[in-house]
Formats: sequence, structure tokens, C-alpha cells
Amino acid sequence: MARAPTQKIRIVTLEGQTHSNKWDRVAGEEPLELRLKWRGQTVKVSVTMRTVGHDFELAAGLLFTEGIYSSFDDVQEVRYCVDAPQDQQYNVVTVTLRDSASPDLSRLGRNLFSSSGCGVCGKAGLDNLEHRGLTALQAQFQLEPDLIYSLPAQLERTQKSFSSTGGIHAAALFDLESRLLVAREDVGRHNAVDKVIGWAVLNGYAELERSILLVSARAGFEIVQKCVAAQIPVLAAVSAPSSLGVELATRFNLTLLGFLRGERVNVYSGLERLRLE
Amino acid sequence: MARAPTQKIRIVTLEGQTHSNKWDRVAGEEPLELRLKWRGQTVKVSVTMRTVGHDFELAAGLLFTEGIYSSFDDVQEVRYCVDAPQDQQYNVVTVTLRDSASPDLSRLGRNLFSSSGCGVCGKAGLDNLEHRGLTALQAQFQLEPDLIYSLPAQLERTQKSFSSTGGIHAAALFDLESRLLVAREDVGRHNAVDKVIGWAVLNGYAELERSILLVSARAGFEIVQKCVAAQIPVLAAVSAPSSLGVELATRFNLTLLGFLRGERVNVYSGLERLRLE
Repeated sequence: MARAPTQKIRIVTLEGQTHSNKWDRVAGEEPLELRLKWRGQTVKVSVTMRTVGHDFELAAGLLFTEGIYSSFDDVQEVRYCVDAPQDQQYNVVTVTLRDSASPDLSRLGRNLFSSSGCGVCGKAGLDNLEHRGLTALQAQFQLEPDLIYSLPAQLERTQKSFSSTGGIHAAALFDLESRLLVAREDVGRHNAVDKVIGWAVLNGYAELERSILLVSARAGFEIVQKCVAAQIPVLAAVSAPSSLGVELATRFNLTLLGFLRGERVNVYSGLERLRLE
Repeated sequence: MARAPTQKIRIVTLEGQTHSNKWDRVAGEEPLELRLKWRGQTVKVSVTMRTVGHDFELAAGLLFTEGIYSSFDDVQEVRYCVDAPQDQQYNVVTVTLRDSASPDLSRLGRNLFSSSGCGVCGKAGLDNLEHRGLTALQAQFQLEPDLIYSLPAQLERTQKSFSSTGGIHAAALFDLESRLLVAREDVGRHNAVDKVIGWAVLNGYAELERSILLVSARAGFEIVQKCVAAQIPVLAAVSAPSSLGVELATRFNLTLLGFLRGERVNVYSGLERLRLE
């Protein structure tokens, strides 16, 4: 994982029926493990996906806004963890509070929960996934570009809440004939995806391996991860992917499409599932 | 808290120097507590902010995509918790797995962490905040609409990563003379805000009570919560707020502005900090 706020990658751009190779920039994304040290004791607080840069501010700010400490003066030191494996040293940050501080450690206890947003725990997100026994996507089929282009309009027609509030994300599942199977909305991007996959679970839908997930927003690591977990082979996003999203999609052979707008789409991985001229 | 995907509220719309009262719709947002039951034992898995609706799908989908269970057949039942306080009964969902399932409960342990995104734990998000001892914003000043309108252009000029990737959120802090103090970017909306507040912590910036936070995205509950925690009295979002964001801002007397674009802005709470004609 490169340590940069953005990363330059090779992509394929489709416009109508024409494709071309291009260089593109994607937002950098990496896991940050946050630790709190006070009076000699260290506790692990959280693992957060973040864009590299200003990591100490993120660590100090997160603990403050979560109410762990309440006075700016409580912070004695913020540093990277030199004990971490070499390639992860800059992904582990420890905030040390002064002995005289009186942090609300009960908030750590109360806040301890599995985020809907991030399945990355442990220092290396990608390695952790393989421990879950996830397997690469094997599905073999080829989609016409026109089929891909037709999806957003179908989702928009179902997005009633969005059109009235402007503040809701959507996810939709399509079969390989571009039939919309289910569409769900939520203030949380990850929730919309979980609702769609939960629909499949509760309805015993057995064809996820021959389906396409469309999301109205970005395709970060966590959304890609959910697709791999559910063995959905094609993920199309109306907005941008992140660097770690692209990395994960490539590793697990997911077809990742971004900036799907009109008759135009960027292909970040899994090009072989598109029928090109 | 009303149980609806969207809520209708009264707002004030500013256009140039003119203001008018309007009805507006905001995306509904409420905490969902997710519990897992297996072989007679129940564990609390997570608390997630979500839009009400399709709660069972969200619960079943989240546990599946997080790798807690791996076969659709593992789910025996999904239900609301009848033991919860009456006004929260529909905010607590229990997924029961079959005795024959073999869930990966170690993933619960590994995933247990404090989300950067959600400080809501316990059943009632708003009540919990008061337990933190947060106080309402007392700051008294009046901002000219023109000053508000000038902020987004300043943020855009600093947003180098965004312009090249399209996938990064930004947050910026301004003083009451509209001077930009700090701007930060991140793939995570909450991270960008935490970085800005962390900047204040690490630089001992003592004027947060006379500052304005601008975010490039939506203003949900968690972003409003971070402002209250840091005692920043004005939050301006380029996009929409959520219902619980508005509720929290009103309760803690934060000035909440949304859809700030050109010479136009919606005022959801704290109107008294704007100088109107």
C-alpha cells in the first residue's frame, strides 16, 4: 500500500462502444489503528479506513469528539507505533494522555461495537480478508456496455426518498438481463448495500453470482468487501472508487466500474466481464 | 423520533438577502441496535445509524457481509425486541441463527471497536449525548449571509485531491471574519471533521466557540455531534442534513445550514446567528 493521499492507476474508459486505456487518480485509503495510552496502560480503540495524511490530527480529534478526553491539554503525545510490522508502522497511532488527565474510559466500553461501515480489523485489511476464507469471484459472463449504461436510470426511478431530500444513498441489485431485483435506500451507504444483500438472504435468492450491484455513491474498500463476501461479481458505482477498493477488487477478481454516467464508465478491474468491440 | 424514511420540517431559506419560511423534507435517521442470538445466548453486535425501513434486511445483511454467518440457511428468525422500552422497540433487532449453524463469533470479537462514524451507543442516541455532559452552544454573534456564501469557494480552492479523484470529502474551519483556518480531506466524511478538530487540539486553537465548520457533504447526526462536542456553533453543509442531525442541532442550539450553494442556503436551526434583513 502506497502512502499517498491519491494514487495513479491504469484504467480502461468506455464511451459508448469505444474503449481506451488511461491513467487515472483515485483517493488513497488505508486502515488506521488507533491506540490510547494512559498511566502506562495501552488500549486499542478503533480501526478506521482513512486517507493517509494528518494522521495525528485524526487520532487526537477522534478521541476528543468521541468524548474520551475533554481538555486539549490532556494530550501529552501522539506518535506512530514503532513496534508494528514495518509496512504498517504508519498505520498504527498511539495517543498518550497526561497522567493528570481524567479520560472517560467508560466511553470506550460503551462505544465498543462492530461498525456497519468497516470490516477491517487487525492491521492489514487485505490480509485479514483472506483469513475470512473469502474466495475470488469465478463467475464467467460478458455484459454489453449498453446494459451497464441502462442501470442508473432504473435506480433513479425507484429513488423516491432521494429526490425529495437529496440526502439518501441507494443500492440496487440487477440480474444479467438488467432487470432490477431490489433497490434500497439509507442515510448510510453501507446500510443500503447490507439491506440489498439482506433481501437476498431473507428471500433465499440464489443467483447472486449472476448479478450486478449498483451504488449511487462511491465504491470504497468496505463496499467492495461486501460484494466479495456476497459473491456478487460486478459492482458499478455512480461515483469514484478508492485505492483500496480497486486493490481489493483486483485481488478477488471483482469487476469494478466507477463514474457510471450516461454512456460512459471507468473500468478499474475485471475487464473480462465486459463485451468490448 | 418519528418512524419514517423521510420527515417534513419547517425551515428558513435564504436567497441573497431575502429569507422565507418553507416546508422541507429531510432523510430519516435513527439508531438500530443489532443483536445476535445463537443456542440460547444473545450478544449485542452493533449500533448503527440508519434510515428506518427494511430493518430485518439490514440486520441479516450486515451479519452476512461481516462474515458472522456464511449460509443463507443459517438464519432462523429476525425480529424486533419486545423487551426494549416502548419508544425504542423498533430500533432493536435480534437475528437468531439455527442451532446447526456454525457462526464465526470470533469475528464479533475482532470487529468490536469504536467506530469513527458513530458515537451513538445505547438505545437512544440523543439521551446518550446528555449523559456525556455536553452543553448547548451559548455563542452569540450574527453572521452576514454574504459571509456564509463566500465559504465554499474558499474550500474548493484548497481541495486538490478532490479535483483529481472526485472521491474525497472535505471539512474546513473558518473564523467569524471568514478566514480559512484549516482544511482537511479524507475518504471518510467523519475523518475529515476529526482531522480539523484534531488540528485545533494539537495547535491549542482556543477560538472554536467563534468558528464555522464547513463540510463538503451531508450533515448527519454524527457530524452534528462532533460539532457540539467541540463547541463549534455553526455547521454549514454543501449537501443535506438528516432528521436526527436537525433534531440534535435544535436541541443543542447549533446553527445548522444545508445545501449551501451559490447565494442560497437552508437554515435548519439556530437562525439567530444570521443577520437577516
